[in-house]
Amino acid sequence: MRFFVFGIRPILVFLTLSLLRPVGLGFAQDAPAHTVPERTLPIPSTVSPELQKAMARTCKMPGTPPTMVELMARIHKAEADSEAYVGHIQKDFDVSVEEGRLGGVRIYDVKPAVIAEENRHRLLMNVHGGGYISGRGVGGTSEAVYMAYYGKIEVIAVDYRMPPEFPFPAAVDDSVAVWKEIIKTHTPNDVGIFGTSAGGGLTLATVLRLKELGLPLPGAIMAGTPWSDLTKTGDSYFTNEYVDNALCTYDGDLGAAAKLYAGGHDLKEPLLSPVYGDLSGFPPTVLVTGTRDLFLSNTVRVHQKLLQSGVEAELLVFEAQSHAQYYAEAPETAAAHQEVVQFFDRHLGR
Amino acid sequence: MRFFVFGIRPILVFLTLSLLRPVGLGFAQDAPAHTVPERTLPIPSTVSPELQKAMARTCKMPGTPPTMVELMARIHKAEADSEAYVGHIQKDFDVSVEEGRLGGVRIYDVKPAVIAEENRHRLLMNVHGGGYISGRGVGGTSEAVYMAYYGKIEVIAVDYRMPPEFPFPAAVDDSVAVWKEIIKTHTPNDVGIFGTSAGGGLTLATVLRLKELGLPLPGAIMAGTPWSDLTKTGDSYFTNEYVDNALCTYDGDLGAAAKLYAGGHDLKEPLLSPVYGDLSGFPPTVLVTGTRDLFLSNTVRVHQKLLQSGVEAELLVFEAQSHAQYYAEAPETAAAHQEVVQFFDRHLGR
Repeated sequence: MRFFVFGIRPILVFLTLSLLRPVGLGFAQDAPAHTVPERTLPIPSTVSPELQKAMARTCKMPGTPPTMVELMARIHKAEADSEAYVGHIQKDFDVSVEEGRLGGVRIYDVKPAVIAEENRHRLLMNVHGGGYISGRGVGGTSEAVYMAYYGKIEVIAVDYRMPPEFPFPAAVDDSVAVWKEIIKTHTPNDVGIFGTSAGGGLTLATVLRLKELGLPLPGAIMAGTPWSDLTKTGDSYFTNEYVDNALCTYDGDLGAAAKLYAGGHDLKEPLLSPVYGDLSGFPPTVLVTGTRDLFLSNTVRVHQKLLQSGVEAELLVFEAQSHAQYYAEAPETAAAHQEVVQFFDRHLGR
Repeated sequence: MRFFVFGIRPILVFLTLSLLRPVGLGFAQDAPAHTVPERTLPIPSTVSPELQKAMARTCKMPGTPPTMVELMARIHKAEADSEAYVGHIQKDFDVSVEEGRLGGVRIYDVKPAVIAEENRHRLLMNVHGGGYISGRGVGGTSEAVYMAYYGKIEVIAVDYRMPPEFPFPAAVDDSVAVWKEIIKTHTPNDVGIFGTSAGGGLTLATVLRLKELGLPLPGAIMAGTPWSDLTKTGDSYFTNEYVDNALCTYDGDLGAAAKLYAGGHDLKEPLLSPVYGDLSGFPPTVLVTGTRDLFLSNTVRVHQKLLQSGVEAELLVFEAQSHAQYYAEAPETAAAHQEVVQFFDRHLGR
């Protein structure tokens, strides 16, 4: 008997339905779906005190779709806060952020105080998160600042156009436009692309689009908890609903953002939901998520599809983290970045 | 702004508590713990129909600690069923299972009809799952039969002694005794060790013990959803309670098995709960789990600790799978085994 005494029974019975007669099942009984009772989740002792702090906060329930006015007001407020936040971490991390343009797109050139010897000829391109509707301007560069600091590497952060004025495929077009400029001055294999959440999805969509266009691909990519499926498809949209204290649920701003971004396109188009794309030929890919992440399934589905497509792909799952909490101000953030940085170091051109 | 508009707020506020004044938080509010309402989890469309079938079954709630008589009765029944099951898969997979002894321990020599050319000099050693209290005899060889079939490789399955007669450390002693015999006839680097659930924990504990004894280590190991923490510590013991339809909860047979196995030892001793051990110097390790697995945290905590100890470690997480459902009779089972087999092929001696 291969698992625990109760663990085995439901599985064994299904395995052997045609072989053995079902027997008394202990915990198990037939049922079409699965009801889980209300429960209070303790703050786990298995994460740092800093992460525990970030976990000690709950969701407002139930999630309700916002009006456009509410959504826009929240975005503007969040972007203002983010801009102030980036100002602070820039100083703390001693990283410079300089506005510029590449391929007609606004970018930020993000440089650490010291660039590592092995990274002098390397570059990372970042497409920020924010549900494809938020993260405009310098406030959208925080991921780039973190990576420049931990990786001792220059990062070009793409300030791609967004809804409501510029729905899909503007974000993909801008990301590709910047990439085309970057590879005029860099060997593609020396450049990585990374992003988190919508930025993780956009990283994957960018590579899909580069494949379509027959353009050179990056040497490696990071898809951090990628929004790989814009529909509410994937088990963790349900299992981690309200368990994830960062995103909470699809049934609020998230679903609204998906529609706003898609601008009438089918949400399952691969450039919108890259899990439905042909991922063969992708560069080595590292994926990052957490056990409480609403996008846990979005992440592992891509990981499995990459592996089954013959792509070198690594998965990092952090204990008890909700969506993108590897950006919490906690030791786990350093660990996650070290692991991603090492991944890029192993795979980008030497 | 890096994530989705609501995603960012709780995180940002914690990140910047000392930098920015907290603002209106949308979904978020301060709270010491986290209550998740009752919900019905749909059967996801993102897994095969066969796996959907295995998912369509619920837990009896709440879990209650069994009496010894109840526990033993269930174990004997399960072991009888498992023996019949192994008889069937042996035939289906054309794998032979032959009883023997190695180092004074009962083993089963499990051989596929054809051994792959590259595996002629290689061997895998299996320690079965079953909560350390179940899986005696030929019924405990199903994992070995699967691996022999998918890997085209010979497997030695260790029928280690168990409670109530033989509590810890009998299982570890037996595993080590068999290992010592195996490396008399095989180059250690040509041999892998693998196991699932209690067997995943025992795989890790065996390597810890080999390190203590200064014995040669295997070339690679697989720790499938390892029971790495015998105490109810780790976030998914709570987040996936009753979400996992295989193990359901710690608060029943699982907790009872932990105590029975430990036989009075501290459950956090590293040879009982290997997540607390020194994992440096471990061989390349592949870990397997599922998004609904009660042992998701048991798995990712070990993965992270291995990476932070400088060990090459790969993590596979399967969509919507409960504990060890990569043994369900589903296409996902073939995918999981292919990936594990490829891992062994990359890392065992050539």
